[in-house]
Amino acid sequence: MKAEIISIGTELLLGEIPDTNASYLASQLPLLGIDLNWVSQVGDNHARLVEVLRRAWDRSDLIITGGGLGPTEDDITREVVAELLGEEMILDQTLVSEMEQMFLKRGWKMPERNLKQAMVTSSVTSVPNPYGTAPGWWVEKDGRMLVTLPGPPRELHRMWTQEIAPRLRKKSTSILVSRVFKLLTLGEATVDEMASPLLSSTNPTIGVYAKFDGIHLRLAAKAANEQAALDLMAPFEQQLRDIFGTNIWGTDDDTLESAVGGMLTEKGLSLATMESCTGGLLASTITDAPGSSAYFKGGLVTYATQSKIDSGVDPAVIEKHGVISAETALAMATAARDRFGADIGIGVTGVAGPDGLDGKDAGTVHIGIDYQGSKKNVFINLPPRRIEVKRRAVLLALAELRKLLIA
Amino acid sequence: MKAEIISIGTELLLGEIPDTNASYLASQLPLLGIDLNWVSQVGDNHARLVEVLRRAWDRSDLIITGGGLGPTEDDITREVVAELLGEEMILDQTLVSEMEQMFLKRGWKMPERNLKQAMVTSSVTSVPNPYGTAPGWWVEKDGRMLVTLPGPPRELHRMWTQEIAPRLRKKSTSILVSRVFKLLTLGEATVDEMASPLLSSTNPTIGVYAKFDGIHLRLAAKAANEQAALDLMAPFEQQLRDIFGTNIWGTDDDTLESAVGGMLTEKGLSLATMESCTGGLLASTITDAPGSSAYFKGGLVTYATQSKIDSGVDPAVIEKHGVISAETALAMATAARDRFGADIGIGVTGVAGPDGLDGKDAGTVHIGIDYQGSKKNVFINLPPRRIEVKRRAVLLALAELRKLLIA
Repeated sequence: MKAEIISIGTELLLGEIPDTNASYLASQLPLLGIDLNWVSQVGDNHARLVEVLRRAWDRSDLIITGGGLGPTEDDITREVVAELLGEEMILDQTLVSEMEQMFLKRGWKMPERNLKQAMVTSSVTSVPNPYGTAPGWWVEKDGRMLVTLPGPPRELHRMWTQEIAPRLRKKSTSILVSRVFKLLTLGEATVDEMASPLLSSTNPTIGVYAKFDGIHLRLAAKAANEQAALDLMAPFEQQLRDIFGTNIWGTDDDTLESAVGGMLTEKGLSLATMESCTGGLLASTITDAPGSSAYFKGGLVTYATQSKIDSGVDPAVIEKHGVISAETALAMATAARDRFGADIGIGVTGVAGPDGLDGKDAGTVHIGIDYQGSKKNVFINLPPRRIEVKRRAVLLALAELRKLLIA
Repeated sequence: MKAEIISIGTELLLGEIPDTNASYLASQLPLLGIDLNWVSQVGDNHARLVEVLRRAWDRSDLIITGGGLGPTEDDITREVVAELLGEEMILDQTLVSEMEQMFLKRGWKMPERNLKQAMVTSSVTSVPNPYGTAPGWWVEKDGRMLVTLPGPPRELHRMWTQEIAPRLRKKSTSILVSRVFKLLTLGEATVDEMASPLLSSTNPTIGVYAKFDGIHLRLAAKAANEQAALDLMAPFEQQLRDIFGTNIWGTDDDTLESAVGGMLTEKGLSLATMESCTGGLLASTITDAPGSSAYFKGGLVTYATQSKIDSGVDPAVIEKHGVISAETALAMATAARDRFGADIGIGVTGVAGPDGLDGKDAGTVHIGIDYQGSKKNVFINLPPRRIEVKRRAVLLALAELRKLLIA
């Protein structure tokens, strides 16, 4: 099956946003054994959209459009697809009621112009979109398929995974199954070297990728069905696990906070935080994991030195070692433990930037962990970009906690 | 001048990387007064690349390609462009010497296969690439222009800013200036309706976009120079400000946290938080703004009910109204104020999900603000997606604080 992706929206041609929808969909098609030959971006322009769609209809078996389903005058995907199909648009009363309900829930009356989002044609099966007001279209006609997806990535992802991918899977003759293994504390080149005996394999293939949360190893096998692909992958997974051991902290959609959360739950341990330079991001990341209320007791964001002291940090420690120091980070960890009655406390102090503080450069971060009275410190010097310092300090704190929980 | 961008590389069709080169180039063209009508991605496939280039040559005045200039067999951009031009490729001995020098500097002998990067045709002016071994091509023929750029973003950016943009600027007769106005607490359709008297304007143009931090109105004018464009925009900006008033919270690169931070600084007010369902994200967002240590006293993440009580929330309030209630949110706001000695306290309590809690649905959020003793409450019912509930609750809290600071 030959597929084509068309992303619609003048904002793409103005470079206001990169087309992450196209790259997301491109990454998903191989999993269904579908080849992608063409990708293009086109503005909210009737003539040009007609041209692009007609050509796609002539040369591709499956056309996926993203964007242009909104309620405004700019949003013309429905009109143009109806024109391509040579079919009339009619109002679907069931969709109208559903949309009115959705607005009602938020306490609003549905504006008149949202009505166009409830239009369909005779070849169209409407596709639910619980995250927005724009339903998608699924069209099968003359041996071709066409799918219109909403532009907001959250809505597009949900519609793809829940509605479109399952329908396409039924039509596919071969599939690709992949699994991602996530590693921390090893560099990309080191991982590449350690995995090198396996990298020449063609089915399954193994790829090494540097991502924001560490190095990802991607194992992917092509086969007639899922079980056959898994059978191909199994011996390779075993070899990867033999090579990397506990450096692999998770797979696929695992997040570091959920991996750590799972270990805390298993061991029946609770956690509390006191953070300065990360400003609440550590607590927020920990609580991104569903079920974190079972082990996360609470956190303190002690931005000012006085608030650290008020929260139980000994002023003599700050006086002697400075507010940005290993000792203060540990005192914060212990104070967090005490204050919330938790088994483990994490303290983070440092300089997020852009300017230095207290004689320390921006990017300096100290992390302290108090694990039932046993204490550990780490220090890192990051590039002085505020948001990046916060993000990487949080990853490091969670990675260090994970090490302690494994040991 | 009508432009077209073609990004070349099979990795784009596999979704391994998003096409950031195309969005970068797209963002740069309007500044030169060049309209971009078409963007597409194509794999390292001879037949399809020929097809795409021929069509571009027929319909566009300026074609910009990115990628496919490397030394491997996959890299076919030069061959295909030469074919399009109907010209023979010849080795440019000056380029050969330069490339040999570049390799020598790194202590390497130039591999034979890099020679293809030194090929040109009779219409080609070679464009220097000090960051890599692949020079670009600048072609002018039959009233059309074609530019080939290397794929690695660092090389492409440098070649664009240093070599290509200056040449194009000389050929351009107009530029585009744009400004973004950011709004909150109004839906996209409502903004569209309110702005509708202005939306039919063709210069400047006004576009309405739904973004994660609210609705963006983009005003853009084309003129011979910047001042003329600003003059065109001024009366429209005034009308937008008349229509939307204080619903506009910022422009261009402003963030809500920096907008609120600026108002707090100006009024000399300080802030503290106590949050439950947002788990620290409110504090983290506030402290994303550089300089926030001047007004942000600190925050508490009181996930457990007991930790709310320990932090100064009256247990009788929780007992009477429930932990997820307007009254508890306000009591948290007041406790945060008291505890950190701040002028303003914000309390957030709710259910991030995925499961309900205490008889309340996931997505239920109460926000309380205590502004020097004067109190305000808001309530929202969000779609029950954990990360999204956190993010939108934080935006709402900051938007409500902003309203109080304006009043």
